[in-house]
Amino acid sequence: MSNAASSPIRHAVVLAHPDPNSFNAMIARAYCDAVEAAGQEVILRDLYAMTFDPVLKNEERPVRKGVTLAPDVRAELDMLRDTNVVTFVFPIWFGMPPAMLVGYIDRVLGAGTTVRQVQDRSAEGPLGKGHLCAITTSGAAADWLEAQGQTEALRELAGTYLFRAFAMRSSEALHIGDVVEGASSAFIEDSLQRVRKRAASICARVGQELYGTPLPPQLGDGS
Amino acid sequence: MSNAASSPIRHAVVLAHPDPNSFNAMIARAYCDAVEAAGQEVILRDLYAMTFDPVLKNEERPVRKGVTLAPDVRAELDMLRDTNVVTFVFPIWFGMPPAMLVGYIDRVLGAGTTVRQVQDRSAEGPLGKGHLCAITTSGAAADWLEAQGQTEALRELAGTYLFRAFAMRSSEALHIGDVVEGASSAFIEDSLQRVRKRAASICARVGQELYGTPLPPQLGDGS
Repeated sequence: MSNAASSPIRHAVVLAHPDPNSFNAMIARAYCDAVEAAGQEVILRDLYAMTFDPVLKNEERPVRKGVTLAPDVRAELDMLRDTNVVTFVFPIWFGMPPAMLVGYIDRVLGAGTTVRQVQDRSAEGPLGKGHLCAITTSGAAADWLEAQGQTEALRELAGTYLFRAFAMRSSEALHIGDVVEGASSAFIEDSLQRVRKRAASICARVGQELYGTPLPPQLGDGS
Repeated sequence: MSNAASSPIRHAVVLAHPDPNSFNAMIARAYCDAVEAAGQEVILRDLYAMTFDPVLKNEERPVRKGVTLAPDVRAELDMLRDTNVVTFVFPIWFGMPPAMLVGYIDRVLGAGTTVRQVQDRSAEGPLGKGHLCAITTSGAAADWLEAQGQTEALRELAGTYLFRAFAMRSSEALHIGDVVEGASSAFIEDSLQRVRKRAASICARVGQELYGTPLPPQLGDGS
């Protein structure tokens, strides 16, 4: 039982898409499956299925006298505690994440965080020094987005900025473009394979970092 | 009555801030006052006061078979019809607009717009070939945002991208940084003056463009 004190490595997958049968939902499931195959834990936060409320209330704004956490935010923060990796899965709509995801960041990840903390990089969010991954999809071709200056802007917003704001340990992004209705099964399977590989690589890296091995520590069987 | 067929120039101010007494609310009012002082029309869409729902539903997604407009979106589109200028007023939270504004763009401005239309620049939004203005505030200093690559990313997202996506006639942005609680009245008044000047300059430009004069056409008095 030498490793009994080690807690398992835990991922939270935050999905923001209105269609439970969407390609984004398939991506989230593929990520979850790959994490479990690597022997790590994963929880799925399907924001639409949860009917999460993305609208930040006035009393939730960080002010000098402290901030009131709403019950749904408090419950979500409890859920995220001891999470090592948070992975967002969302489509790009008009250059931005869906309001659902934006509100999750404002209300949950940013709960009570002031501008000064962000500037000082002292805003340790609910994920502590965790890892951040953003998997995004778009109906537009990646090269078209690039020509619009969008991929860089998205990298800044969906990855780097949050990474800096919450002083996380690392951030990375995987973008899948050209997602159209009636995409071929080969395109879908190829894309999901990219997601599984990315999930496996994150699992290995975090395992290495926390336990010096890409595999999770084997707990005793209690005998 | 030679100008009787000319409709008045109309602005819509879309405000997204949870505090009705916020600096953002003051900015929206200052903009509205300046438009009226220029003899043009303005409507204020205070998204929090309207309890606008920013969550795009699955049945609102543009698909090949057409799209269903929700009653609140349809009402908002009716309200925006014949608007020449839309001006967004919002704070930057964690590098993005509030979910409230993001959802307004997705559900109202983007209603039924497909990715292909955006790529082809054939997505003439509800504002037709109108003008777009984004007035943003941040608690962070402008130079700090610049160092984070944020101002460029924001220009892309809050201005250029929407401008391109909806094939609008022009877009411009005004950012007011260093907005902190207890800001001096001189700072506030100076900032509101910048807003009024910007509103007046937009009014003059649109008047010039539509009527060849920065002033609105004088309608007959009916006598």
